[in-house]
Amino acid sequence: MSGSVYGNIFKISTWGESHGEALGVVIDGCPAGVHIDEEIIQQDLDRRKPGAFKYGTKRSESDSVRILSGVFEGKTTGTPISLVVFNTDQKSRDYANIMNVYRPGHADFTFESKYGIRDYRGGGRSSARETLARVAAGAIARACLKELGIDVYAYTRSIGSVNITTFDRDEIMNNPLCMPDKSAAKKAAALMDKAMADLNSVGGIVECVAKGVPAGIGETVFDKLDASLAKAVMSIGAVKGVEIGSGFSAALKYGSENNDCFTVKDGKPAKLSNNAGGILGGISDGSDIILRAAFKPTPSISRPQKTINKNIQEEEIIIKGRHDPVVVPRAVVVVEAMVMITILDLLLINMSARIDNVKKIYEN
Amino acid sequence: MSGSVYGNIFKISTWGESHGEALGVVIDGCPAGVHIDEEIIQQDLDRRKPGAFKYGTKRSESDSVRILSGVFEGKTTGTPISLVVFNTDQKSRDYANIMNVYRPGHADFTFESKYGIRDYRGGGRSSARETLARVAAGAIARACLKELGIDVYAYTRSIGSVNITTFDRDEIMNNPLCMPDKSAAKKAAALMDKAMADLNSVGGIVECVAKGVPAGIGETVFDKLDASLAKAVMSIGAVKGVEIGSGFSAALKYGSENNDCFTVKDGKPAKLSNNAGGILGGISDGSDIILRAAFKPTPSISRPQKTINKNIQEEEIIIKGRHDPVVVPRAVVVVEAMVMITILDLLLINMSARIDNVKKIYEN
Amino acid sequence: MSGSVYGNIFKISTWGESHGEALGVVIDGCPAGVHIDEEIIQQDLDRRKPGAFKYGTKRSESDSVRILSGVFEGKTTGTPISLVVFNTDQKSRDYANIMNVYRPGHADFTFESKYGIRDYRGGGRSSARETLARVAAGAIARACLKELGIDVYAYTRSIGSVNITTFDRDEIMNNPLCMPDKSAAKKAAALMDKAMADLNSVGGIVECVAKGVPAGIGETVFDKLDASLAKAVMSIGAVKGVEIGSGFSAALKYGSENNDCFTVKDGKPAKLSNNAGGILGGISDGSDIILRAAFKPTPSISRPQKTINKNIQEEEIIIKGRHDPVVVPRAVVVVEAMVMITILDLLLINMSARIDNVKKIYEN
Amino acid sequence: MSGSVYGNIFKISTWGESHGEALGVVIDGCPAGVHIDEEIIQQDLDRRKPGAFKYGTKRSESDSVRILSGVFEGKTTGTPISLVVFNTDQKSRDYANIMNVYRPGHADFTFESKYGIRDYRGGGRSSARETLARVAAGAIARACLKELGIDVYAYTRSIGSVNITTFDRDEIMNNPLCMPDKSAAKKAAALMDKAMADLNSVGGIVECVAKGVPAGIGETVFDKLDASLAKAVMSIGAVKGVEIGSGFSAALKYGSENNDCFTVKDGKPAKLSNNAGGILGGISDGSDIILRAAFKPTPSISRPQKTINKNIQEEEIIIKGRHDPVVVPRAVVVVEAMVMITILDLLLINMSARIDNVKKIYEN
Repeated sequence: MSGSVYGNIFKISTWGESHGEALGVVIDGCPAGVHIDEEIIQQDLDRRKPGAFKYGTKRSESDSVRILSGVFEGKTTGTPISLVVFNTDQKSRDYANIMNVYRPGHADFTFESKYGIRDYRGGGRSSARETLARVAAGAIARACLKELGIDVYAYTRSIGSVNITTFDRDEIMNNPLCMPDKSAAKKAAALMDKAMADLNSVGGIVECVAKGVPAGIGETVFDKLDASLAKAVMSIGAVKGVEIGSGFSAALKYGSENNDCFTVKDGKPAKLSNNAGGILGGISDGSDIILRAAFKPTPSISRPQKTINKNIQEEEIIIKGRHDPVVVPRAVVVVEAMVMITILDLLLINMSARIDNVKKIYEN
Repeated sequence: MSGSVYGNIFKISTWGESHGEALGVVIDGCPAGVHIDEEIIQQDLDRRKPGAFKYGTKRSESDSVRILSGVFEGKTTGTPISLVVFNTDQKSRDYANIMNVYRPGHADFTFESKYGIRDYRGGGRSSARETLARVAAGAIARACLKELGIDVYAYTRSIGSVNITTFDRDEIMNNPLCMPDKSAAKKAAALMDKAMADLNSVGGIVECVAKGVPAGIGETVFDKLDASLAKAVMSIGAVKGVEIGSGFSAALKYGSENNDCFTVKDGKPAKLSNNAGGILGGISDGSDIILRAAFKPTPSISRPQKTINKNIQEEEIIIKGRHDPVVVPRAVVVVEAMVMITILDLLLINMSARIDNVKKIYEN
Repeated sequence: MSGSVYGNIFKISTWGESHGEALGVVIDGCPAGVHIDEEIIQQDLDRRKPGAFKYGTKRSESDSVRILSGVFEGKTTGTPISLVVFNTDQKSRDYANIMNVYRPGHADFTFESKYGIRDYRGGGRSSARETLARVAAGAIARACLKELGIDVYAYTRSIGSVNITTFDRDEIMNNPLCMPDKSAAKKAAALMDKAMADLNSVGGIVECVAKGVPAGIGETVFDKLDASLAKAVMSIGAVKGVEIGSGFSAALKYGSENNDCFTVKDGKPAKLSNNAGGILGGISDGSDIILRAAFKPTPSISRPQKTINKNIQEEEIIIKGRHDPVVVPRAVVVVEAMVMITILDLLLINMSARIDNVKKIYEN
Repeated sequence: MSGSVYGNIFKISTWGESHGEALGVVIDGCPAGVHIDEEIIQQDLDRRKPGAFKYGTKRSESDSVRILSGVFEGKTTGTPISLVVFNTDQKSRDYANIMNVYRPGHADFTFESKYGIRDYRGGGRSSARETLARVAAGAIARACLKELGIDVYAYTRSIGSVNITTFDRDEIMNNPLCMPDKSAAKKAAALMDKAMADLNSVGGIVECVAKGVPAGIGETVFDKLDASLAKAVMSIGAVKGVEIGSGFSAALKYGSENNDCFTVKDGKPAKLSNNAGGILGGISDGSDIILRAAFKPTPSISRPQKTINKNIQEEEIIIKGRHDPVVVPRAVVVVEAMVMITILDLLLINMSARIDNVKKIYEN
């Protein structure tokens, strides 16, 4: 159980090493009858593509996806959907010098502690390239959610100390840093330039919003919506923290400040605030679901760093190769993917929560 | 799948409503041969017992656990361990007035949206009393981890704006707020008194440390140790954020600051810092695992609050009954429990990571 | 993972040893809104109760079930349903003489090989008494299936060489052997009397029918309906074979004989025969689901048998205590239970097979 | 959850339609350090290859497997192993005439009832070609089991009324019917020739033996070894019955005949007979595991058959295309595969059954 299978009903199995032949994902449990084509998946993949923007790794992969099964005449058939992206630009020799040395901040040491063997080329299975398969699966989840009127989007909320101060959704796709604030994006770009010049890297925060999720999604105790989202997002390589709604700031508030009072709006239940981030008792309340993930700075930096080698001897390492000085902008679509996959799975699980709903499906 | 089953190998199924007949847990997959008795479990249960300290709910339950199966002559047999605590102090009438009204910050509205029916007595299944079963299962996990030399402990790091500034492990059990800093505990107590006088409540942060976890625990992609811990801890009622190691502050750091350089100590791999919180690439690195959880202030406050009722009409509510003005101190042992259960499960899963280890078990 | 958790959506966790304090089951994922009371469960439990008929064990347990959670005002709430039966007649001393000896045909030797420890009292977890929890969970599944118009019943098809030759459903509950053929039941009773006089035991076959299962239930590859039923039924203690429809006799037939031709009946799809036993390609076809399970003779016989003890020395054993000379009649309701639990789980899983059905639940 | 994921620790996800672009499998949880290459997998695939023998379908696929991930320098790395076989001989037009008609004995009708859409080309996902992925995964399991000294093999026990009467393991690979009895193979060939001339098909029985499985494998209640094997094998397309050891004949025996007495052989526990088929109480006893599966005759026959079409109108159908008149010989390696995958998974699960074994892995 190397942990590459995720989900209960909408279940994905990802595979592939950074510098292996290919990467891919098999999606089992996608409802039949959903329109899918390679174009839809490619759109999301292109958003995380290396080389897509100035601050990303210089590696250029076409990252062209192929659908190998599960779709017939443009529609899902209910059977496993196999998606594959063949690697075309694996410069393996770039990595030969780190074959026996453990890079600080990377999984080299821990992976080898676990398995006793390591595909050292480009991080192998622990490479951020692994997220390609998540994004491909996320695109399928997006197509399903769209049928239900659910819209999930994420953006860069901060890079280093630069936070967004305004919000314009259209701007997200307009700047290479995926910030919904043009002016913040400019400041962040300047910060990035400085970091690159310093042979350094920076972290940041991604925020994700899910609109249109009906009330009632999420299971009561362990498989709560927020708990499931926390796992989903924390499983992305560089994430070190996850929060929902008011998050860590809730720890500083009084109950009278943090509680969201209920009200009636257009004859329907609504809330006067959304500190809960759309989730109460682990179950969606019908308002926007709001989540933030903290990304650490890219561990690959070109400065000399102290480390050890396979023989447990101290060494100095200077990491060469192509690396993102910040992972945040390319991670935006990865966060979206994990959130969509998780919400869809819980939506499908929730279908049997009431016997009345079971009867809706089976009674004539 | 109402989501009350947790874990893969060490699998727990919890059950019970706040004001039902009893609460309990069934633990399947506990290794055979571990010494267990009711005393061991009771010790942990007493730490979350209502009425155990001044700032907790006034409800007094004896919370006496009984082992109904899976233990024979003082040892686990490998079969399911069923633990039960019968309720003895269910004052149901206290809650009759909130039968048709949704309390702000609680699961009343979302639970009813999901199931169309709700045991309104004391929060039913969504009550914090549900965590009793987690703590009971956690005590079994603790006994297993002890056999492997692993020590997990948590404490209150902050209540409202009061943070600990010193650390004395022995102090944790000495003050009712479970703070490892006597002076901070005094300040927090003053803050609590003020909040109670104001008919208000406060939040706080719990920190948890796991010592002695060997390198190599956690699965590579989705079932990462940090991702699994995030789910485990976020599934506790009032938690709104989880972070590992440097957590959210990593988003503000440069790579050169956040990376932990490797070194050799006593001939063994070690690190010069622990921003990673003991986890790299989702796998334990052998240093302390460090995690923090942000708890929101108790939503039950005795002030009047705006809300709605079942007929989607606006109403004012004043919540009566017995409630904790802060959940943090009683949640400390719950966080420990979830962390222990999760680490144990991943330890058992990891046993088959290498064929060499498989041979160790099966070859004569 | 000692394997006492079963199901995906409708998930049951059973626990309890034959001579422990109690046995029980926790059912997670039962849809909310189903009428349940202890009476409904007791009815099924009474059908497998020891001492209920002449050929059963002489042990007399009241086997009274208690519902500890998950039901509120007579209806399921969607949360875990905890059912418990306390043991009242554990004559542990009866078993003291087999503490260090492995009974032929029993799990004593294999259980101890696995866990290194064994609750030897009455077979511990491997006792047929374990099935009590399956039957209790099955009664809940039956209540759910009834709401969908699905009717599952089983009966004794043969005991030793005595087969039924006629079928009268009402007769099943009328004779102690649960045979739908009064005359066969008489012959079987004579066979039983002879076997008991000979200090011997006999086997037999249980047949189970599920009526009203809609077409489309069962998943395509591994979680086929027939595969799932085979596991469900083979997991009952003494079962050594399972077959669907024409079963083993299909191996002797020509394709032209075994294929069921489709036809139209009352404007609906129908079949001219049912060799498939209601399942094609692992998916229900709308006709009756038909399954048979072969039970071995009770291994506990009072004749002297060769065996070995814990010190791997040969010994002779004469098993004393209270044992059924045939398990088949009491197993009838256990087979029903496992079939109902399995069909219900797959019915709930199937709800999300089509996006159209997902929309039925979520679109207003 | 279309049910194409199988296993707990050693978890496989299969995908692919008969006439799609490719078929494949992703194996998650294979222990690291096992020698694997394409040759090893190809050997097993060639045994189920269409066109490999006179009585198989005439379709000729090269069925060349490619390893796309999870193997580095000839060894498994612990990460998902992705195997793919591209289709090269998809004559889709052969199937155009059955696009709107349901073939008797096939999944056409039930698949469409379930999903409302069907890839009618060659049976789509319900084609026997799906088993290719099982065999590929089985070859990986075989490599793991070999490291533990476990040997699994299957053979044709009967075709129609022709049973084997002698057993010569070497003969299995020598005749196209995979019978361990040369003379029976000749008679079965004659039977086949007659059936083909009659435009008919026949069924048969496959027997499988697992040697060297240590005592203690299999979980106590639901995940018994025999129950798991029953599901594994019943999930193969045409299987209608599964039995272990004495199987259905046990229902006719007396306890004194069916019990296997224990004895001591070479200082070790042994049995005087093996009616149990190596499994007691769902747990392996150290002797040979023996299982039989009944296969129905191939449903595709070239005779006219009554059936219905999509508009629920009666029609006559004559199935053209390339079909096996008997599936049994090609199914032999599929049964082996499912048995190996299942035993390996339960072997890995069993590693944590005792705390002593856990300590063996983690204590220095």
